[in-house]
Parts: sequence; C-alpha cells; structure tokens
Amino acid sequence: MEPLPGADPLLLTPGPLTTSATVKQAMLHDYGSRDIRFIELNQRICAGLLSLCDASETHLCIPLQGSGSFAVEAMIANQVPGEGKLLNLVNGAYGHRISEICSYLGRRVSVLETGEDRPVDVAGLDQALAADEEITHVAIVYCETTSGILNPVADIAQVVATHQRSLLIDAMSAFGALPLSAPEVPFAALAASANKCLESVPGMGFVIAAREAFPATEGNAHSTSLDLYRQWRSLNDNGQWRFTPPVHCLLALDQALVELEEEGGIAGRRRRYEENCRVLVEGMRELGFATLLPDELQAPVIVTFLMPGNDQFSFPDFYRRLNDRGYVIYPGKLTGTDSFRIGCIGHFGADEMQAAVAAVKQVLQTMGIRNLGSE
Amino acid sequence: MEPLPGADPLLLTPGPLTTSATVKQAMLHDYGSRDIRFIELNQRICAGLLSLCDASETHLCIPLQGSGSFAVEAMIANQVPGEGKLLNLVNGAYGHRISEICSYLGRRVSVLETGEDRPVDVAGLDQALAADEEITHVAIVYCETTSGILNPVADIAQVVATHQRSLLIDAMSAFGALPLSAPEVPFAALAASANKCLESVPGMGFVIAAREAFPATEGNAHSTSLDLYRQWRSLNDNGQWRFTPPVHCLLALDQALVELEEEGGIAGRRRRYEENCRVLVEGMRELGFATLLPDELQAPVIVTFLMPGNDQFSFPDFYRRLNDRGYVIYPGKLTGTDSFRIGCIGHFGADEMQAAVAAVKQVLQTMGIRNLGSE
Repeated sequence: MEPLPGADPLLLTPGPLTTSATVKQAMLHDYGSRDIRFIELNQRICAGLLSLCDASETHLCIPLQGSGSFAVEAMIANQVPGEGKLLNLVNGAYGHRISEICSYLGRRVSVLETGEDRPVDVAGLDQALAADEEITHVAIVYCETTSGILNPVADIAQVVATHQRSLLIDAMSAFGALPLSAPEVPFAALAASANKCLESVPGMGFVIAAREAFPATEGNAHSTSLDLYRQWRSLNDNGQWRFTPPVHCLLALDQALVELEEEGGIAGRRRRYEENCRVLVEGMRELGFATLLPDELQAPVIVTFLMPGNDQFSFPDFYRRLNDRGYVIYPGKLTGTDSFRIGCIGHFGADEMQAAVAAVKQVLQTMGIRNLGSE
Repeated sequence: MEPLPGADPLLLTPGPLTTSATVKQAMLHDYGSRDIRFIELNQRICAGLLSLCDASETHLCIPLQGSGSFAVEAMIANQVPGEGKLLNLVNGAYGHRISEICSYLGRRVSVLETGEDRPVDVAGLDQALAADEEITHVAIVYCETTSGILNPVADIAQVVATHQRSLLIDAMSAFGALPLSAPEVPFAALAASANKCLESVPGMGFVIAAREAFPATEGNAHSTSLDLYRQWRSLNDNGQWRFTPPVHCLLALDQALVELEEEGGIAGRRRRYEENCRVLVEGMRELGFATLLPDELQAPVIVTFLMPGNDQFSFPDFYRRLNDRGYVIYPGKLTGTDSFRIGCIGHFGADEMQAAVAAVKQVLQTMGIRNLGSE
C-alpha cells in the first residue's frame, strides 16, 4: 500500500524519523518556560529517562538544547577534566567525532580503532588500560550509525570497571530500544537524543551522569551554552533550564515516553525494530542486495547495504524514485565501503517495511533491473 | 473575555511566547533532514531572515540548534579571533552574559557599563575606541530583556564604523519587530532566535554575518557543535546542517515568516507590539503600577514594573492568581531594582492585552487591594 498523495513520506532514516501523529500533536501548545507546568513536565521527563536505564538512584539526567552531538560534546567536556585522558574506541564516524571533540576541547585522547565492520576490540581495551595509567576515561559508541554495528557495551563496561576507569557511552542510536541498565553496565555518563529510538522530534539531547561524581565536574566545561554542570545546578535549584528550552520538543518527548511505555518499554520497542530489520534484510537480500555486516553484528536500527555493482543501478536515481513513492532512505554514506543505508526505527512496523521493500522492487523494475545479483 | 477552560494560557513573556495555531500546526510533519524538501525549506528560511535586515547581498545566514544564547556564544567565538579584544556595552543581564561567554572562551573583554535604566553610553564608546587600539570588536544588546530598554544601535554602529571596528549585535528580543537594516546600521554579525519577535517556537537561533570577512573566521571556534564556520561550510557545500537539525522548529519558523510577511513585515509587527505595550502600560499605571523605564527608553517588547510597596501585594500570590485566570507573566527578575516583567510580544493584540489588564485588576481586588498607589 503506497502512502496517499500529499501524505508525508515514511522516513527510513536513523532520525529524525517518522514520529506518531500523537507525538506531533503534543506540540500544539505553548508553555511558559518558567511556569510550573513546564517545570513539572521537565521533572517527569528526566525521571522517565533515568528509569529507562535503571539509573534513578545512581545518576542524574541533564537535558540539553541542540542535537545529540551537542550532548556528546557537553558530556565529554563535563566529564573529562583538563588533566584527564580519554581512550576512544572507534569503529565509525561517530567514534571519530568524539576524537574531534577532544581536539576542540584540548583534551588528550588516544584511539583504539577497528574496521567499521568489526566490533571494537575488548581485549585490546584491556591491554591499553593496563599499559597506560594516564587514561582516566573510555568512550564508546553503543550502536555506530555509520554502519549500524552493535558494540559490546556490557563487556566494555566490565573491563573499564575492572581497571577503575570511567566509561562514557554515546548511546544515541540505542537509547530506548537496546538494553542498557546502569547496575549491570556501569557507566559514568551516557549521551543520547530524543529523536532516535525514543521516537520524538529533534531539538534536544540529554546526558545521564553518575550522581556521586557530578559535583566535581564543576568548572570543566569550555562553553557556557554546553556547561552541563551549570545546567544541572539551575534545574536542581529552581527547576528551570539556564537558557530558553525547546519547549515543544519536551512536550513531544513527554508523549513519546508515554507511547514507549505503552509499547512495553525498551523490550517491546526492540521487538518491533528487530522485526522491521528482519523484514528489511530478508526482503533486500531476495532482491539481490547484500548487507555490509553479518547478522550477528547488526543492531536493529539502521542497515548498511553494499552499493550494487550493476551498471544500471544509479543510487541518486534509486533514491529519487523511492522518494517519489513515499519512502525516504538515507542518502550519503559514512562508511569507507561504497554503500547506502536504510533505517529500521520510527513509528512504523513490519507492514510498512514490507511495503517499502515492495517499493524497492518496483523501483528496480522501473530502472530496468531484473536481478541485481546476476546481471 | 477570559480564555476557555482547558485552553492554553496567554504567555505574556519575552519568549517562548504564544504562537499562532498555524505556526504550531506546521510542525505536524516529519521531514528527512537530508532530503531535498528540507534543504529547500532551509534555503527559504535563510533567504527570508537575510531579507528582513536587508542583508541578502552583504551577509550570510547561519542557523544553529539550541537557544538564542547558543547563537550568541557561537557568534562571539566565530567573529572574535583569539588575539581579538571585545568592548562590551552593558546595561543588563544579557550584556553581562556576553562577558561571561568571553571568559569561557578566553577572549579579552573590556566593559563599558551603564545603569539598567539608562541606554548604553555612545559618547563613552567613542572615547573608549579612541583610547584603546587593541579593541577589535564591540558588542551591544539591541533590546535588553533585563529591563526592556532600547539601546541606540544605529548611533552605536555609526561610532563603531567611524573607528573601523566590527560590531556584534545581540538582536534576540528585537529581530522581527524593531528595525535593523544592514546598509544603514553596519554590523559584522548579529545573533537572534526564532522564538521572540519572529513568533516561532524555541529550539534554534541564527547568526547573520558579513559575507566578505566570513572565510577568515575558520578555526576560531572553541566547540565543534557551535562551530559556525563549519556549519556554514556544510550548508554551503550540500545544503545540510552538520548535526541533526531541529526539523520541526524549521517547519514552524517557515510558517512564522509567512505570517510576519502577511502582517506587513517588521513595520506591521512593530505597530501591533507598540499598541500592546501602550495598552499594558496605560492600564497598569491606572491600577497604580509604575514602570522602571521612562516611555522614551521603552522597547515595545517587555515592560518592567516596579514591585509595589503595598504590604498586601505578594508577587507569588499575584503570579498564581493571574496564572489561574489564564495569563502567564514572567516570574523572577533580572534587574537590581525589585520588579517584575510583562511581555508585549506573541500572537495576540490589544484586545487580549486589555483582557490581561482587566485580569490584573480583578486579581488585585481578590487580594483585597483597592488602590496600589494610595494604600
């Protein structure tokens, strides 16, 4: 079934993604940013986010304006003091971004890099921490959106804890759909955003940071806007954001958290995404496409497909024709390998994904391609 | 006429403010952030913002995620190089924030401060620039939301241009309602946000920066998220934001710019705000309130009222009772003088302001206050 003419296309992207009508409708209000209604909204959201990672007793939630990358930068600036040193586990563009952030911040960083189709190196991490006592923090991207690969965050947390260092998690494309429980996966801080697996709109991120160590982060920030310590102080003192909050994003996120709960929480959402991913991968393989990653490394968030070698296949043409049919996939690649990506996350299920695969099949036919694999 | 039960209260605040239903309804869509629809939306918005200050030929528009303060910080970091020195003209909290930003950035700053009920000192500026050749930039807040005072930005620009320095304008509470024409008021850069006089939702700001000098700002930024140069490079190269844009804020702003145009542009909007301000000030004076500022210094944006000396007047009680009647004023003060503030901006006119004043009158009666002035 194709979308109606004039209807919004389905976003098969890693976020911003297709949100529910009710999440968007929650934005049809204006709240005063210093009013009690807004203060209560904030407190409810922060409590909900902490609860999603079983961190209500141990961590603080500090929301922040901007994209998820703003939250990652704020987390690193807040958590890693000037004399600290970060070991950065990298297997994609978002890992590299963390190194870039350190370079802006003037923080020391060493990098342990693996190929973008391989999980980060847990044994290597153990050795690196044993070898370099100056390392105070370790950074990891839970699900690398570059390829869609799942990193072994629980194993990493174990090693980091054994060496008594602090773990910083970029949980951007994972939070809300992949399990992350603070008592089981010890972390100093994580950063994520509203517009990925939480299925809300873009405009804000948040950092969840260990409560006990937090007061010592005062003065670490390089930027007044991104000063998480002062943001927390303000929220703690009077319930207010330091600078104008993205009120409508918070209204949407509040509703999105209700809908996540109704879906059965993280486990329920993960089941839907896994089904979306299965339908996508099976369908695309039937059409002759191949995935970059083996199934056991694939997170049910975004799938990277190798660019077909077929001469008749032009990606810009493929993208445009799918778009005309109401499906927006992710143009542009971040991987070294020539590839494109299709997201599994957002407010839709297996039926819509089946229809998307059917649209891909039609598009290949209109491009005059009968079988990608054999031509 | 009181708002219907259940309806949103009217926000008499300096932003986030009451937006039109149609601005909010524009957010009932999801756009892919790398899709052509979104790229076109962006280009239309940036062209519209440049046009509002007659800067299409001379300046660039760089949108940025976050609140207006994020844009101010990004502007200062981008425009003032490490070896630069800023002269900061201060008569309120937002001026002081610019000094605070410089302190985070490690930029040299000297301050020329006047009382919060006086415009900044143009003659003093002339002397300061003559006396200190190291000053490269001058910063001014056009309308200081602390008090609501209007600063003489045209006169300041003249002096700065005569001394061949660069002017940075915090136009947050002015842009969209107060005149600012680049050919008449030469400026190197200004920062503003979507959720003030443009009457859109919060979540993004923008910087309008002189085109010719912009390439030389590469490398000035202290933060990857706030790196305006790289944001501009990305938008220029492929039409895309570097990090996830607040898509729904842009959808709202696009509609808000249409509605500004329909109202007769900046001149039309200013007339409505001036009328709102007149009704408010006259009505409140009749009830015995006094304004901090004389009328000739008052911008039609937000009005600061002195806290009544009357023993029966409790501000928290006053605020709550007005809130119960559907009017949210601005709690908390930034001025040194004991005071409170009521905004004149947002999607409403003289009738609603008249009703707000009537509600204030009722509230005073329910508090047992007959006449503020004489008791």
